[in-house]
Amino acid sequence: MKPSIPKGTRDFSPLQMNRRNYIFDTIKNVFQLYGYQVIETPAMENLSTLMGKYGEEGDKLLFKILNSGDWRSALDNTSDLSLGQATNKVAEKGLRYDLTVPFARYVVQHRAEIVFPFKRYQIQPVWRADRPQHGRYREFFQCDVDIIGTRSLLAEVELLQIIAEVYKRLNIAVEVHINNRKVLAGIAQYIGFPDKMVDLTVAIDKFEKIGKEAVEEELRQKGLTQEAIDLLQPIWQLEGSTEQKLTKLADLLKDTDEGLKGVAELQQLFQLCEGCGVDKTNLLLDLTLARGLNYYTGAIFEVKTTEIPMGSITGGGRYDNLTGIFGLPDVSGVGISFGADRIYDVLTELNRFPENIAQNTDVLFVCFGEKESQYAMQCAKMMRQNGIKTEVFLDQSKIKKQLAYANERGIPYVAIIGEEEMASEVILLKNMLSGEQKQVAKAELEHFTLR
Amino acid sequence: MKPSIPKGTRDFSPLQMNRRNYIFDTIKNVFQLYGYQVIETPAMENLSTLMGKYGEEGDKLLFKILNSGDWRSALDNTSDLSLGQATNKVAEKGLRYDLTVPFARYVVQHRAEIVFPFKRYQIQPVWRADRPQHGRYREFFQCDVDIIGTRSLLAEVELLQIIAEVYKRLNIAVEVHINNRKVLAGIAQYIGFPDKMVDLTVAIDKFEKIGKEAVEEELRQKGLTQEAIDLLQPIWQLEGSTEQKLTKLADLLKDTDEGLKGVAELQQLFQLCEGCGVDKTNLLLDLTLARGLNYYTGAIFEVKTTEIPMGSITGGGRYDNLTGIFGLPDVSGVGISFGADRIYDVLTELNRFPENIAQNTDVLFVCFGEKESQYAMQCAKMMRQNGIKTEVFLDQSKIKKQLAYANERGIPYVAIIGEEEMASEVILLKNMLSGEQKQVAKAELEHFTLR
Repeated sequence: MKPSIPKGTRDFSPLQMNRRNYIFDTIKNVFQLYGYQVIETPAMENLSTLMGKYGEEGDKLLFKILNSGDWRSALDNTSDLSLGQATNKVAEKGLRYDLTVPFARYVVQHRAEIVFPFKRYQIQPVWRADRPQHGRYREFFQCDVDIIGTRSLLAEVELLQIIAEVYKRLNIAVEVHINNRKVLAGIAQYIGFPDKMVDLTVAIDKFEKIGKEAVEEELRQKGLTQEAIDLLQPIWQLEGSTEQKLTKLADLLKDTDEGLKGVAELQQLFQLCEGCGVDKTNLLLDLTLARGLNYYTGAIFEVKTTEIPMGSITGGGRYDNLTGIFGLPDVSGVGISFGADRIYDVLTELNRFPENIAQNTDVLFVCFGEKESQYAMQCAKMMRQNGIKTEVFLDQSKIKKQLAYANERGIPYVAIIGEEEMASEVILLKNMLSGEQKQVAKAELEHFTLR
Repeated sequence: MKPSIPKGTRDFSPLQMNRRNYIFDTIKNVFQLYGYQVIETPAMENLSTLMGKYGEEGDKLLFKILNSGDWRSALDNTSDLSLGQATNKVAEKGLRYDLTVPFARYVVQHRAEIVFPFKRYQIQPVWRADRPQHGRYREFFQCDVDIIGTRSLLAEVELLQIIAEVYKRLNIAVEVHINNRKVLAGIAQYIGFPDKMVDLTVAIDKFEKIGKEAVEEELRQKGLTQEAIDLLQPIWQLEGSTEQKLTKLADLLKDTDEGLKGVAELQQLFQLCEGCGVDKTNLLLDLTLARGLNYYTGAIFEVKTTEIPMGSITGGGRYDNLTGIFGLPDVSGVGISFGADRIYDVLTELNRFPENIAQNTDVLFVCFGEKESQYAMQCAKMMRQNGIKTEVFLDQSKIKKQLAYANERGIPYVAIIGEEEMASEVILLKNMLSGEQKQVAKAELEHFTLR
């Protein structure tokens, strides 16, 4: 029997974990500097919480957990049920599909104890029964940060500051694509198909992936007339500075309330960025940005690296009624999600992980015999007092084997212990790279530093 | 519709998360100081990996994941199947039940890339469909640390060092109960029921919970004779120092190979502790310690606090063939698991969490208007450069409301921004506790420290 793991899931080795933790810690530190507080929610939610929140396709992609005990008896005499109804009979719980719906559920359930505006972050795995393929997993981590309970556009500005700081620290050059859902609604109205807003966003969302012609073909299939599609042309072709584009757009959408509101929000956002000292050079107005999720109602963002071709590595937006589905209407919020797996791929491809990220242990004690090992255990404990990560080779193996272990593990120092070192109460510390050696008195180890 | 979460699961609020992270970080830091490397495995494992590893009861307590797509058709014409067989038809995957079996699977699957001895730690949630009750959850975290690929008893000593260091840092007084499975096997042989070793350990494991009489009653029900139970008496009643007890025990078990091996291992372990400078005052030989899990073959440990009544907060032991079930025999290892939830309860009851653990944000900018907010966004960004956790109140609310937010969030400093501060390019920093105020120049904020 050869052990394996389910398709689309992954084991993470120590090196991968160190790299992943470098990403998570960087993101987490920035979130904390901005005063965001961490929460966690359970892996399992009631299916009643999850179903119907991600569209029909999403319902199918939820991992459902079989009820404990005699689940089969719930199916007795139910041959007339649909598959979905039968599933409801045998499964009450499912694995979370994203962090947004559980967050909305959390806010509603704990509203009495939350101080609003509530700034929270959450870094946890999510699960989707998607067909596994290159770069798409059935278990992956999301890093979400949201401000809920304020309509101030300064919240959007703050998230743009956070994006800039995270990618500065990760040393990845990025550009932030910005649009507004109200503008998209205005465009749908402007071309005479206000009820096609969703189809329009779904199609436009593919603009970069499949190109303008294919998007237009999809719109035609969704029932848009050639006349409507022609009306879109001047919008795709807007030119000039962001300010100039927005002025022209306001003119095109002048008869649509929603569209004008969206343009005004975008204008205000860019002005606030300036007032707050946010570097605007990497902020791009992108009218082809739609984002698939239906709960967005205002600003939407996507971040891409300018260094290599790669999809969005961060995305999010403003939602006005996310908690409404759980009975708490009119709580506006804005949030973004960092895609840890894609950021990992970018850093790998660009070779930008910090050096020495593989190194866990500073010093390995190499011992000539069991008495030496016991002496080494005492010395190692003293070195750890000063924060030095120290291992003792525990087996009574040949010195060559012990040194090979240090090499394979990439341990930069070994402390060699033989009779002589024990007798003189010292350790012989050797730099594995330079070959340099020096004696250190055992009595000094508690305060010893390596560099 | 009132939102809720599945029974036995929990949301963790920011305060709870800070407390939990304090525990996890303390444990993690000690693991790292000893050179242990982190891995993670997927939440879902193939049921073939998990089933049969935790006994019949464990199989029932596994959360099973319904196959995607038309799971129901697999049940067509299968009315003669048992519930277990039917479950196998509709569920291929399950949630991990502990970290030990996935670790064994990981070691076998990745053996080519692992440098042995492999010292790893793993901190992840596990899931069990247990009946939820006070202090027992269906989702909880385990913090496991293992050394695999060495038979050296120094590995046991190292884990005892780790236990001592973790609880010293957490400021919890503990005692470590120590026994050896070979001793228990020897006892089973000595009383004439070598094949009742498992029943004996299961019964003895309840010694502390249900008392000696009830244990003896259970043994009687399992088929032990009164004569055999009488033979156990001198073992329960051993007296003297650890060394004296072990000498007497060696005498009692002199005709059992396994028992003598176990006693010798215990003697050697205590001697090694002495040689390695481990404080032995809190190490207790406890012949009533059995630990339920069947894979243990040598030393077994359990840690209890001496400060309040509470079950075991850490436990583990030596296993000689954990990876054998996955086709890699004869790899000996030893590991322990820290129970984060119980440690949380102990620290809560003893009121030993560090002060200020609730505090996330150092400074809140309180602003008289929108221009002030924009100025504050610039200043806050500068303070964050020096590691000060800083928030700007984003809404244009009354100053009283902004100050109330600082209070409720426990933020120790506010920076008040009005026209005057903007004009003189300063901030007015106020200590919320002492009421003390001082002006700080905006230009100095990047290097400003609070204390």
